[in-house]
Amino acid sequence: MINVTIWNEFLQEQRKPEVAHIYPKGMHGAIADGIKQDGFELSYATFDEPEHGLTQDKLDNTDVLIYWGHVDHKGFQDQVVDRICARVHKGMGLIVLHSGHHSKLFRKLMGTSCDLLWREADEKERLWVVDPSHPIVEGIGPYIDLDEEEMYGEHFDIPVPDELIFVSWFAGGEVFRSGCTYRRGQGRIFYFRPGHETYPTYHNKDVHRVIANAVKWTAPIQREQTFYGHHEPLEEIKK
Amino acid sequence: MINVTIWNEFLQEQRKPEVAHIYPKGMHGAIADGIKQDGFELSYATFDEPEHGLTQDKLDNTDVLIYWGHVDHKGFQDQVVDRICARVHKGMGLIVLHSGHHSKLFRKLMGTSCDLLWREADEKERLWVVDPSHPIVEGIGPYIDLDEEEMYGEHFDIPVPDELIFVSWFAGGEVFRSGCTYRRGQGRIFYFRPGHETYPTYHNKDVHRVIANAVKWTAPIQREQTFYGHHEPLEEIKK
Amino acid sequence: MINVTIWNEFLQEQRKPEVAHIYPKGMHGAIADGIKQDGFELSYATFDEPEHGLTQDKLDNTDVLIYWGHVDHKGFQDQVVDRICARVHKGMGLIVLHSGHHSKLFRKLMGTSCDLLWREADEKERLWVVDPSHPIVEGIGPYIDLDEEEMYGEHFDIPVPDELIFVSWFAGGEVFRSGCTYRRGQGRIFYFRPGHETYPTYHNKDVHRVIANAVKWTAPIQREQTFYGHHEPLEEIKK
Amino acid sequence: MINVTIWNEFLQEQRKPEVAHIYPKGMHGAIADGIKQDGFELSYATFDEPEHGLTQDKLDNTDVLIYWGHVDHKGFQDQVVDRICARVHKGMGLIVLHSGHHSKLFRKLMGTSCDLLWREADEKERLWVVDPSHPIVEGIGPYIDLDEEEMYGEHFDIPVPDELIFVSWFAGGEVFRSGCTYRRGQGRIFYFRPGHETYPTYHNKDVHRVIANAVKWTAPIQREQTFYGHHEPLEEIKK
Repeated sequence: MINVTIWNEFLQEQRKPEVAHIYPKGMHGAIADGIKQDGFELSYATFDEPEHGLTQDKLDNTDVLIYWGHVDHKGFQDQVVDRICARVHKGMGLIVLHSGHHSKLFRKLMGTSCDLLWREADEKERLWVVDPSHPIVEGIGPYIDLDEEEMYGEHFDIPVPDELIFVSWFAGGEVFRSGCTYRRGQGRIFYFRPGHETYPTYHNKDVHRVIANAVKWTAPIQREQTFYGHHEPLEEIKK
Repeated sequence: MINVTIWNEFLQEQRKPEVAHIYPKGMHGAIADGIKQDGFELSYATFDEPEHGLTQDKLDNTDVLIYWGHVDHKGFQDQVVDRICARVHKGMGLIVLHSGHHSKLFRKLMGTSCDLLWREADEKERLWVVDPSHPIVEGIGPYIDLDEEEMYGEHFDIPVPDELIFVSWFAGGEVFRSGCTYRRGQGRIFYFRPGHETYPTYHNKDVHRVIANAVKWTAPIQREQTFYGHHEPLEEIKK
Repeated sequence: MINVTIWNEFLQEQRKPEVAHIYPKGMHGAIADGIKQDGFELSYATFDEPEHGLTQDKLDNTDVLIYWGHVDHKGFQDQVVDRICARVHKGMGLIVLHSGHHSKLFRKLMGTSCDLLWREADEKERLWVVDPSHPIVEGIGPYIDLDEEEMYGEHFDIPVPDELIFVSWFAGGEVFRSGCTYRRGQGRIFYFRPGHETYPTYHNKDVHRVIANAVKWTAPIQREQTFYGHHEPLEEIKK
Repeated sequence: MINVTIWNEFLQEQRKPEVAHIYPKGMHGAIADGIKQDGFELSYATFDEPEHGLTQDKLDNTDVLIYWGHVDHKGFQDQVVDRICARVHKGMGLIVLHSGHHSKLFRKLMGTSCDLLWREADEKERLWVVDPSHPIVEGIGPYIDLDEEEMYGEHFDIPVPDELIFVSWFAGGEVFRSGCTYRRGQGRIFYFRPGHETYPTYHNKDVHRVIANAVKWTAPIQREQTFYGHHEPLEEIKK
C-alpha cells in the first residue's frame, strides 16, 4: 500500500468562483477521485494548515507527495521546503504538477530558475509521448489532447531531465518538455506540466492515468539508507 | 581570449607547513602554472579577500571560474554563493575541484547533499576515461595514475551527470564518478575529483591537461540571453 | 504473470567438467533456482535447439528474455538475431548477462563494438551501487562482493547508458560500468556484467536479487503498439 | 583545419526539375556555400560515384562526414555502410541530415528502426532551442522558423539522445526531437531534422550556422586510439 499525500495550495478554489466551479472539492479532490481506484492510501494537506499540513510526522508517513502550488510560492515556509527536500533525499517520491515548477521546493531540488514562457489564452495543448517504453505512459495513447490549457514554452530552465517522457505542442506555436523525471538522493521526482486551475484538466482520464502511474513509479524502493562519511578500507593498502 | 578566475580558499597553505611546502605559490599558483600555456587570461581570488574576491564586477568579467574550497565552506557568504549561481545561470563556466563538492555553491547548483565516502590513507587513485570522445580528455591516455590521494567513494550523492567522463579506482576498494558535467541555465559545469591539499596532484601534467580542456569546454558560447516570461502567440489561436 | 525465457548458450557446461561441476543444471538452471520464488513463469532455450530455441512463437510468448552466450557468438544465426531485435523493439524486455556483451544481438542493439578489456585471473570484483533509487537495486546493499570473477575493464565501447546502476572495482586495478539500462523501440534492456562460467556467480543471492528485479523492470508495459508512417494533420494548416 | 566531406545522394536534383530549380548546385553545393566561410576543407561525394564516393582512403581523410540521403537507401552498399560505421567508431564526426534518419548507416549506428510520422504538406516548422548552453546553438536565437517543410513527428524511434538540442513544432499538430547528439565509439554524431529536397531549407542562414557549429562539435579530438583486449593486471592480485 502506497501512502500518497496530495498537497494542494487550495487558495484559488477559495478565492475565485470560476475555479471553485470547476473544482468544487478542490483540485486535490479531483485528483484523488481520479486515482483512488488504484488502491493508494490517500490523504491531503493544504497551504492554510499549520506548517502547510506537511509536518515531519506527516512526511515521515508519506511515500509519494503530489504537489500543486501557484499563487503564494513566496509565502511557503522555508523550513517546510527544507523538510520536504530532506524527505525526497531519503527516498520519498515527489510529483510536481504544473505551476509547482516555480515553487521554492522544485527550484531548490533542481538548482535552476525553472523559468519558462507562459500565456493564458485558452489554447489547445497536445502532449506527445516520446518514451513509449516508460511505465508512466502505461495505458496512454500516442498523445493526450487538452482542449484548453495555459501555455508553457521553451526554454524551460531545468537541468537536463534524467528521462523525457512527454513533449507538448501548443496551438500558439510553442513546445515544452512536459513530462520529466529526476533522481535526487534516494528519491525519484516526476514533473508533469498540465493543470492550470481555470481548466478541467484534473478531470481528464488520461491525466489521472499518468498521475497514478507516476505514483507507482516514484514510490520508494525497499533498501537500507545509504551510508555516507568516513570509510575504512575494504582492501589492504600496500605502500 | 577566455577570462579564467581561479578561486582558491587558500587557508590550508597558510595554516599547514606541509601544504605550503607542496604548494609554495598556493594551489591556485600551481594550477595557473599548469594551464598558462593555453593562452587564457588568468586571475585569482581567495577566501580572505572582501566578498571572497568574487565581487559582481569580478564575476561579470569571468568566463570560467575554477573553484577549490575545503575547510571553511560554512564561512562562505551566502550572498556570494547566490551571485555565483546567478552568473552560472547566465552562462559562466564553472569547474569545481575535489572538496568543492561540499561547498554551498555546488550543493545549491546540484540540489542534493553531495555526500560521499572518504578516507585519507595516502592510497593510489586511478582515473579511467569512460568517454573517449569528449573534448575534456583530449591528449589523455586510457587512465591517469595518482600515487597518493584522498579516497572519495560511492555512493556520491549527486544528480545523474549529464556526461560521465572519468571513473576512479582506489586501492582500498572503492570507485567514484570523478569527472562529471552538468548544465545549469546557460552555464556548463565540470566537477573533477582529484586534488587533496596534502598531495602534489596539481603539479601533475595530466591533471593540468584535464583542467585546461575543461576551461575550453565550459567557456560560454556567444548567444543572446534567453528570454523568459509572458509570451504572445506566434500563431493565430483558433477557437 | 511475467513470462521469462532464460536463454543459455549451454555449451561450456557440456564441454568443460569444471563448469558442469559448478553448474550441474546449467547456468540457466542456477538462475532459475535463484529467481523462481518471485513467481515468474520460467522456461528455457539453448544454442543447440533448432533456431536456438528462439522460434517466433517462443519469442511472441516471452515478456523478458535473459541471455547468456560466450563461445559461439559467431555461430548464432543472423535471422534469429533479427527476430529477437524485432521483439525487443516491440516491447520485450531483455537482460544481457556477462559475455553476452559481445553477442551479435547486443552489438546490433547498441550500434557499437562492445569491446572492452578482459582478464581471467580469479580476482575480486566489487559492484558498487551508483543509483540507489533504482528498482533494480531493491534489497541490495551498498555493494556486491564476488570473491573471484573474470575482469572486464574500461573503456567499455557501449553507447552512453540511459541509466548507470553499478560500477565495478577489480583487484587488478580496473573499473567497469557493470549495470546499464537502455531503451530500444518499446523495449527495455539491462546489461549486467558478472557471470563468468568458471565461477559460482549465479549461485550468489545478491546476483539473483538483481536479476529478479531486472525482470520486473524490463517487463513490457501495457500499451498500444506505436504507429509509424504517413500522418494526416491534426490541425488545419493555414497557408 | 577540419576536413569535411559532404555526402549528398544527389539523385533528386537530377531527376526532379523542381528540386534542381531550388538547388542548381545540388544540396551539397548549397550546404558548402553556407559553411565555407568557417574555413573548413570541403569536399563532396555522391551516390552515383564508385563506392558512393566513400572509399576507404576518402574516409580516412575525412574528419567530419555530412550525410543526406533519401530515395535509394536500399541501394546503398552494405560494405560502405560498414566502412563508415568503422570510421565513426574510430572518431570521425558524423552529421546526419533529415531523411538520412532512415539510411542503413544511421539505423545501424542507432540499433533501432528510426521510424517516425511524416507528411508533405508545405507546413511551418519551428525548431525551439532546448539546450541554450550547447555549442551547436551558438549564434542561434530562441528558435528557427522554416515557412515550409516536410513534417516528421513523434514517436521518433531512436535511442534516448545523449543531448537533446532542438524540438520542432509543426503547424499540423506534431512535435519532433530535431537536434540530437550521440556518441558511438570514439565518434560523435549529430542528427539534424530539417532539409526536405523540395524546400529551400539549405539556403537558410540559421541552418547553415547549426551545421557549421555541428562540424566543429563533431570533429574528432586528438587522442590515442583506445586499446581493447586482454589486459595484464596493473596491481598485484592477492589470493
